Amino acid sequence: MNFKPKKMLIPFRYIIHLVGLFLVCLSSFLGQAQVISSPDKNLSLQFELSANGVPTYQLSYKNKAVIKPSSLGLEIKDSPSFMDGFSITNSAQNSVDNSWNPVMGEEKTIRNHYNELVVTLAQVQNNNRYIRIRFRLFDDGLGFRYEFPKQNDLNYFVIKEEHTEFQLAGNHKIFWIPGDYDTNEYAYTTSKISEIPSLMKKATIPINAQQPIQELAVQTPSMMKSEDGLYINIHEAALINYPAMSLNVDAENFKMSSHLTPDAVGSKGYMQTDTQTPWRTIVVSDKATEILASKLILNLNEPTSYKDVSWIKPMKYIGIWWEYFVAGKSTWAYGKENNVKLGQDFTKLTPNGKHGATTERAKEYIAFAAKNGFDAVLIEGWNVGWEDWIGNWKEDVFDFVTAYPDFDVKAVHEFAASKGVKIMMHHETSGSATNYERRLDRAFEFMNENGYDAVKTGYVGQIIPRGEHHDGQWMVNHYIHVAQRAADYKIMVNSHEAVRPTGLNRTYPNWVAQESARGTEFEAMGGLAPEHTTILPFTRLMGGPMDFTPGIFQTDLSYYNTGGKQRVNTTLAKQLAYYVTMYSPIQMAADIPDNYNRFPDAFQFIKDVAVDWDNTYILEAEPGDYITIARRAKGKKEWFVGGISDENSRTAKVTFEYLPKGTKYIATIYADAKDANWNEKPQNYTVTKVIVTSKTVLKQYIAPGGGFAISIKEGSFRAMKGLQKI
Amino acid sequence: MNFKPKKMLIPFRYIIHLVGLFLVCLSSFLGQAQVISSPDKNLSLQFELSANGVPTYQLSYKNKAVIKPSSLGLEIKDSPSFMDGFSITNSAQNSVDNSWNPVMGEEKTIRNHYNELVVTLAQVQNNNRYIRIRFRLFDDGLGFRYEFPKQNDLNYFVIKEEHTEFQLAGNHKIFWIPGDYDTNEYAYTTSKISEIPSLMKKATIPINAQQPIQELAVQTPSMMKSEDGLYINIHEAALINYPAMSLNVDAENFKMSSHLTPDAVGSKGYMQTDTQTPWRTIVVSDKATEILASKLILNLNEPTSYKDVSWIKPMKYIGIWWEYFVAGKSTWAYGKENNVKLGQDFTKLTPNGKHGATTERAKEYIAFAAKNGFDAVLIEGWNVGWEDWIGNWKEDVFDFVTAYPDFDVKAVHEFAASKGVKIMMHHETSGSATNYERRLDRAFEFMNENGYDAVKTGYVGQIIPRGEHHDGQWMVNHYIHVAQRAADYKIMVNSHEAVRPTGLNRTYPNWVAQESARGTEFEAMGGLAPEHTTILPFTRLMGGPMDFTPGIFQTDLSYYNTGGKQRVNTTLAKQLAYYVTMYSPIQMAADIPDNYNRFPDAFQFIKDVAVDWDNTYILEAEPGDYITIARRAKGKKEWFVGGISDENSRTAKVTFEYLPKGTKYIATIYADAKDANWNEKPQNYTVTKVIVTSKTVLKQYIAPGGGFAISIKEGSFRAMKGLQKI
Repeated sequence: MNFKPKKMLIPFRYIIHLVGLFLVCLSSFLGQAQVISSPDKNLSLQFELSANGVPTYQLSYKNKAVIKPSSLGLEIKDSPSFMDGFSITNSAQNSVDNSWNPVMGEEKTIRNHYNELVVTLAQVQNNNRYIRIRFRLFDDGLGFRYEFPKQNDLNYFVIKEEHTEFQLAGNHKIFWIPGDYDTNEYAYTTSKISEIPSLMKKATIPINAQQPIQELAVQTPSMMKSEDGLYINIHEAALINYPAMSLNVDAENFKMSSHLTPDAVGSKGYMQTDTQTPWRTIVVSDKATEILASKLILNLNEPTSYKDVSWIKPMKYIGIWWEYFVAGKSTWAYGKENNVKLGQDFTKLTPNGKHGATTERAKEYIAFAAKNGFDAVLIEGWNVGWEDWIGNWKEDVFDFVTAYPDFDVKAVHEFAASKGVKIMMHHETSGSATNYERRLDRAFEFMNENGYDAVKTGYVGQIIPRGEHHDGQWMVNHYIHVAQRAADYKIMVNSHEAVRPTGLNRTYPNWVAQESARGTEFEAMGGLAPEHTTILPFTRLMGGPMDFTPGIFQTDLSYYNTGGKQRVNTTLAKQLAYYVTMYSPIQMAADIPDNYNRFPDAFQFIKDVAVDWDNTYILEAEPGDYITIARRAKGKKEWFVGGISDENSRTAKVTFEYLPKGTKYIATIYADAKDANWNEKPQNYTVTKVIVTSKTVLKQYIAPGGGFAISIKEGSFRAMKGLQKI
Repeated sequence: MNFKPKKMLIPFRYIIHLVGLFLVCLSSFLGQAQVISSPDKNLSLQFELSANGVPTYQLSYKNKAVIKPSSLGLEIKDSPSFMDGFSITNSAQNSVDNSWNPVMGEEKTIRNHYNELVVTLAQVQNNNRYIRIRFRLFDDGLGFRYEFPKQNDLNYFVIKEEHTEFQLAGNHKIFWIPGDYDTNEYAYTTSKISEIPSLMKKATIPINAQQPIQELAVQTPSMMKSEDGLYINIHEAALINYPAMSLNVDAENFKMSSHLTPDAVGSKGYMQTDTQTPWRTIVVSDKATEILASKLILNLNEPTSYKDVSWIKPMKYIGIWWEYFVAGKSTWAYGKENNVKLGQDFTKLTPNGKHGATTERAKEYIAFAAKNGFDAVLIEGWNVGWEDWIGNWKEDVFDFVTAYPDFDVKAVHEFAASKGVKIMMHHETSGSATNYERRLDRAFEFMNENGYDAVKTGYVGQIIPRGEHHDGQWMVNHYIHVAQRAADYKIMVNSHEAVRPTGLNRTYPNWVAQESARGTEFEAMGGLAPEHTTILPFTRLMGGPMDFTPGIFQTDLSYYNTGGKQRVNTTLAKQLAYYVTMYSPIQMAADIPDNYNRFPDAFQFIKDVAVDWDNTYILEAEPGDYITIARRAKGKKEWFVGGISDENSRTAKVTFEYLPKGTKYIATIYADAKDANWNEKPQNYTVTKVIVTSKTVLKQYIAPGGGFAISIKEGSFRAMKGLQKI
């Protein structure tokens, strides 16, 4: 027989309310299949033990197979494995419907609504040693994890490999990047699963400090689309004290399976009961927009334990950064030398004449930020050590507290404070996490003393401890350690080159954003494909906010006369759209101030756009093709819409049904000009003010590689006078 | 032709005085042998390039070969090696004679007197990339190292292996322990070099977290004696930012060669010019006493850069420690559970009823320390985490700031302060160095806040970062990092289970002592051979002070009725001798206070004995057999003598010529009774007061496994009345 979930009470949305907790002892039904459905009944999860007591699950959506019967288990080092020989000793179901408010986010309130199945599995042959598998079935997908309760015969153990299988139902289209223990900064390949083997070599482009997985593997979040129109996203949630998971690919049978990142000695997880794995997540829908709207991964993360979160704030910032990539006139390093060591007298270096982070330049940026309403200025290259920071597996690279001779921390801080602007600290570690950890308290004390309340961290290079990887258990714990310790000092963290996110910004809300994907910097190093940013929200951003650093107005980089014909592969208008389509509670305006001064009307959108939201509406979406999103600013009657396309032009259908009914609003539309193209005349755009209501339907043209942005505000009768209603 | 050293000016001892610096450009003599002699001419060092430009050296003592022609070089990863193809581009000699005063030590003033040869070696085939080899020849031996100056074609490089050879002149007797990357806590084997292969397996006894070297190898300091009576000791000095060296053994050809400790990925040293290797040291004499008197290793270390050393002080201490090994009534852990995690509520554990570090017990020890003039009390097991601290490769083992529920840090501190006694902090890391580093600042702040000024550190277990070793470059840097950071907080460090010392207590004088060998704790775990402590000063202590933790009065451990017939393999009197024969500026009285109360007359010696010295006189010594040492207390007219024997009885010849002439002193002699034996009646001893002068020659009986101790003080006429003059 099947176990149907209890009929739900009518949930009270937006208040925390545990609808039901029903523990059912099922001892008389053991060995039979356990089934639960999602609250809306569209999803069905079935669990059973197959021959030899192997845990097996399957998942369907509207009666279509999403995951065909797939086995579950873990291989253990120097100890019997959790692979088979199981019997079910207990099975319990319960239902939860509550809601919670993130500190910052795309929605003011998030509903957490699921039916749960928890099976307890014991191995008679191993003294009844047991584990639990917990399944949570939401309307938008499935999360499940392995749990290892405290028990006499299980305390410490080491994972050799996790063997969680995902038997897909067909040869889906997949948006993928190569499996790699150290970097997620690959460009996406779109193919059938069966084509992955033949495309892997080409897809594995050179990246600093990469370690491609030897087996055929792709990274998560893995976005797929079936031939019959199902969108399937596999990732993980709450990656804590465990290595990141990639997916081995059986391209003939369309089967994926977990591949954990090993440590320096080849182990894949040091565990002590009571403990659990991260959640393995499968977000499913027949609408691509529902994938982007999913809050399943956040819901599977634990609430924060921080008592005070008042110091965690959204922000827009500029920075001494993009000029290092494009202008050719400045750089991080101060000295000409290619050999420096911490502790030496850096005032004795021979200045290279190109140091970007000078007191003077910092003040210019601060003045620009203050004038244009930015919260903060990032200054990279302020601290000693950049002369030979990369490629040497050097441990004592930076000390995070010693400024170059031409950068006066105190003077910059005082000037910034007088202007009401914050400086965003920059801690590049060069991958030397041990060096960072041993200096961390002192680095954060230095920040407190000098008025910094946010830090951009970087992990460019091979990891130290040597042999560890960016995505291994040790580094996973490192990133969390940094976030927690930063919280002690009320510091926000924006990590670059860290492991891909898994919703931990719920638990550690001061870990405000991450890079962890191929971001804007690559526009200056070969360029991003125009479709890249139509894929990222379906992949990288499923795990959490991305510090993509948009806002490049001068897209043709030959402008700088530094040689080469490099260009940013978007129109200017598309760069504006990113502030809405690429969610992050911190957003950079990445271009050089001079370029914003050249396009003041377009720059107005960046100045206006919100970065924290009450509501989000995914209006249109197709991975690899287009995305249109509308959002309501947190606590304001202001809405912002962003729409992007891939290399093709299209006409977006923008609706406004989320606007309060019966009221007219002024919409300012920043759009590609008809002759614009990512590759030609990318700076041709139009700015138009019109009147919109909740009934408006806008057909908005998008150029090839282009986009549009709309800001919507209340307006006086006078302000609306003469504006067209559409 | 040979280059003879310049004739020396008459040195002014005890003042810093650079006798001469003679740079001699030798371009016209390249390719010929370079020779220097020791200041006393007994030692001669010859360097030349052999065929194919291989650097080669040889060393003789009084015209006897110590090291026959042996090659030098280093193998480099992913780059040409420094092995051959060299030509000499420069050669320089100079002579130094100065002296310096250690913060604490065996001598108030140490003379640094050597002749130096520096050869610059270039490889034409590698763009004239060059290295230097620096030889310093003292009267007591040779030190040499490789130097890598800054140059265009050499910046970063990684060492694959160092190939420094020591071609010995014969099949010497050797006192050795197996080569091991993780532990130096082996018992010594005495054999011919040729016998090492057949004895290695037996010598490699099980030790926690050991990693025996796969090749045939022994550790340094390696003590040897030739058939014609030469004593030869090979070790290293100033081990900084480099892995510790073991010695591969070619037992057929009596050739040793360097074997560096690898890191997690098999590399053996990450180098950046300007840099150098540690010094390779060969202490040589035809008198064993001169080996023990050698200050060559200290002289090869850099002076300290600490500006204030006033807070670094010698100390005698007791501790809640030995009872954990023997009494069976107490232990480190508080809870019965075998599974705990930092962050849990430790007040909810089930007390095991045997926790040693309670507030009450601490106060008892403090009161005893105050009553008997001890400076400090070590309290192990005060902090949470001991329930499952070992054997699990667990990272977050201890936090170093959270006390068990029954230990009141504040109350203990206040009680100790009221008694004028310090508490010695205990930081067991369980080998989890990363965990210690990330908590270090907070741990030291906690010490400052609670009145601790010294810490005993421990590294029992496999190292984290996983794959690293106790003796690898990363850990070598870790120990120094801890010492340096401790200095920031004016904290002294006494490290256990760390890499063997190499004289760094000169450079980091707050690193006051180390264990780093098989110490007293093993008397409770199988026992130490009676000869063990006649070998240690010739091996382990060549590198620096040892926290051997002597002073066990209750040597028959069956006394505690905890089962077994374990015993400490010495007489009681020998335990007293250790305070003189085993040099350390911190000395523990390791036994339980009750046992000292039972033997108040013997205990008087421990109360009296100094731990810091103006002068040291090695009166008699033979490795493996006996040692007799006299020392003058720092700044006092007090002398202490200690003599020990191996498993055989003997009569020591104790002379007193170091006493001021013409004055009578009262000597209190603590000696084995005639019927005493390490194995029988070990607590039978005599205490005799006699009068001695500088002319006295005392024939002192030592029982098998026994020893004696003498304290010598000025005395009034009245006090001397009736005492025998000997």
